[in-house]
Amino acid sequence: MPPRYTPLVDSLPATVPFIGPETLERERGAGFDARLGANESVFGPSPKVLEAMRAADAEIWKYGDSTSYDLRHALAEHHRVAPENILVGEGIDGLLGYVVRLVVAPGDRVVTSSGAYPTFNYHVNGHGGVLDFLAYRDDREDLPALVARATDTGAKLVYLANPDNPMGGYWSGAEIAAALDDLGDGTLMVLDEAYAETAPEDAALPLPVTDERVIRMRTFSKAYGLAGARIGYALGAAPLIRAFEKIRNHFGMNRSAQAGALAALADPQHLAWVIDSVARSRDEIARIAAGNGLTPLPSATNFVAVDLGGDGDLARAMVTELGARGVFVRMPFVAPQDRCIRISCGTEADMRVLDEALPPALAAAREKVAG
Amino acid sequence: MPPRYTPLVDSLPATVPFIGPETLERERGAGFDARLGANESVFGPSPKVLEAMRAADAEIWKYGDSTSYDLRHALAEHHRVAPENILVGEGIDGLLGYVVRLVVAPGDRVVTSSGAYPTFNYHVNGHGGVLDFLAYRDDREDLPALVARATDTGAKLVYLANPDNPMGGYWSGAEIAAALDDLGDGTLMVLDEAYAETAPEDAALPLPVTDERVIRMRTFSKAYGLAGARIGYALGAAPLIRAFEKIRNHFGMNRSAQAGALAALADPQHLAWVIDSVARSRDEIARIAAGNGLTPLPSATNFVAVDLGGDGDLARAMVTELGARGVFVRMPFVAPQDRCIRISCGTEADMRVLDEALPPALAAAREKVAG
Repeated sequence: MPPRYTPLVDSLPATVPFIGPETLERERGAGFDARLGANESVFGPSPKVLEAMRAADAEIWKYGDSTSYDLRHALAEHHRVAPENILVGEGIDGLLGYVVRLVVAPGDRVVTSSGAYPTFNYHVNGHGGVLDFLAYRDDREDLPALVARATDTGAKLVYLANPDNPMGGYWSGAEIAAALDDLGDGTLMVLDEAYAETAPEDAALPLPVTDERVIRMRTFSKAYGLAGARIGYALGAAPLIRAFEKIRNHFGMNRSAQAGALAALADPQHLAWVIDSVARSRDEIARIAAGNGLTPLPSATNFVAVDLGGDGDLARAMVTELGARGVFVRMPFVAPQDRCIRISCGTEADMRVLDEALPPALAAAREKVAG
Repeated sequence: MPPRYTPLVDSLPATVPFIGPETLERERGAGFDARLGANESVFGPSPKVLEAMRAADAEIWKYGDSTSYDLRHALAEHHRVAPENILVGEGIDGLLGYVVRLVVAPGDRVVTSSGAYPTFNYHVNGHGGVLDFLAYRDDREDLPALVARATDTGAKLVYLANPDNPMGGYWSGAEIAAALDDLGDGTLMVLDEAYAETAPEDAALPLPVTDERVIRMRTFSKAYGLAGARIGYALGAAPLIRAFEKIRNHFGMNRSAQAGALAALADPQHLAWVIDSVARSRDEIARIAAGNGLTPLPSATNFVAVDLGGDGDLARAMVTELGARGVFVRMPFVAPQDRCIRISCGTEADMRVLDEALPPALAAAREKVAG
């Protein structure tokens, strides 16, 4: 007899928010020439990070520091907050799971946007929450509508990615702060700032970290080039940060990753170089797109959404055709955003691969959809 | 206004199953000379593991393979099971959290031993389960009593560590298989085999992996020397393994850790050397203990429980006094096992530090307790 799963677990599908590129490569029987689908940072981490991780590997037989003391204190200094306002965790994915678990019981309402980060939805479903989806507006998450809906329904959480994934736009921090003034008591905004480092300065939230209405999620997976290391952190009011101690996996951090993140934070020159490289690649993606009659959307992130001028079928075909030509990209899940494909920034070599693959892929995709 | 936590979370204390050695070192103001308290493997991983992790670090900007395909297939071959019988996860701690979440809803009963692994209890509490604690018997978890209690109460889970932590003993696999025949339908045994590699051959469970009554937990944290890398795996029936896909953090694995574990599995020579080193260190700990009039308990693990012949107060004083002399050890939490301290195996240098520190620490501890 199988184990007796909880009723909630029985009701859940076995699912995965994303198919990983390795799985696609195995299906394809070959590696990708340009890995531009997961918004990773092909520019990699600082060489000092690699050095620090290598040095730390000599002590990989030791469990990591369960309090991430050094990293937490360095992050506190970096953000000019107290260490009590920071929780280090296993990537934003892990932290989103924790925050959902803290507040969402079966039947509790959560507001997000249709087409926003699916891993957040996965966690909400996994804890029995009831998701309320709002449409994007002008290719951005509709901040005022999200806040209004959360307030009207007494939602426990409202999710906003700023800058946005998958479309790349952003709200100014001042606009978000103003919107929070309309948020009902006891609704927590989960502000996913995974792409904060590549965003314009005015995207920063001008509120003290002690503000209990919002928790901000940051990561070393994007601009810091450490997606495979699994290090994120949350910034929030001390009582909320302390609540994670009730449920988090205390010894969940990789020890060398802790050392790597610390070194990453200590090398702002590398970060500046990455941000500059990302900006140049965004321009290059836009140039390639425009050269093929396509419309690149403005981006505050390390990727560019490119409007193919068709519908989801065309974009899906395009993802397949680019993949067949060695270029891994992804696309928004929901109409009308699914008229776009999402291309992560890459090296000059990646851009050459894209430049070459895009015209024939587009022709093939159009033919497939027309046929 | 703070977020509205779930009633369950409101009822939980902010806690941590273990204080990490780094925290103790900070409190002490100095590092430990011998780190023998967390049952880590001071013998470290294979040099080939370090090489593999270093090579993988060059691609640390990529997320890890969400399916841990290569590692899962290598583990399947290693255990002569199908890949569908294996789940790779973020250490046994992470996997215990997942299995509890799969089956334990608020109010569900779970049986374990008083003084057994506290992180398992932490997860059960964290999901609202009701823990039923049974006493150890002859310094082992009382297998027949655990099975009987789980059966009588219709518990969802029953936990057994084999070999046992913190006492070091074990049940034969045949005894466990026989006990499972008495287990009530729909109770799942969580068999924590963290120390399997250092155990005698007859500790192995002689049951097919398709047996739905048990899930086995393994780790690279102990004999493989990779505690800081956070890689464990579960062995079980395919439908149970598949159920984890509903709730696990799919992209939770560190990419270099995946590569390191794969290399560890490919170097049985190093593992054999570690097992031999552990056996010699167990003998040395026993010799040191006996030389001080103390009683080492037989161990199937990478640590030795040493009976101080007193009570919990003496053992607590001894942990403190050894710590003050640069030796980090831990001790069982519950009487009468808390008459012991638990010393992890170490290098010859570690053993010399222990040999030197133990007599004065023991004298000081006895004086403190007598005073």
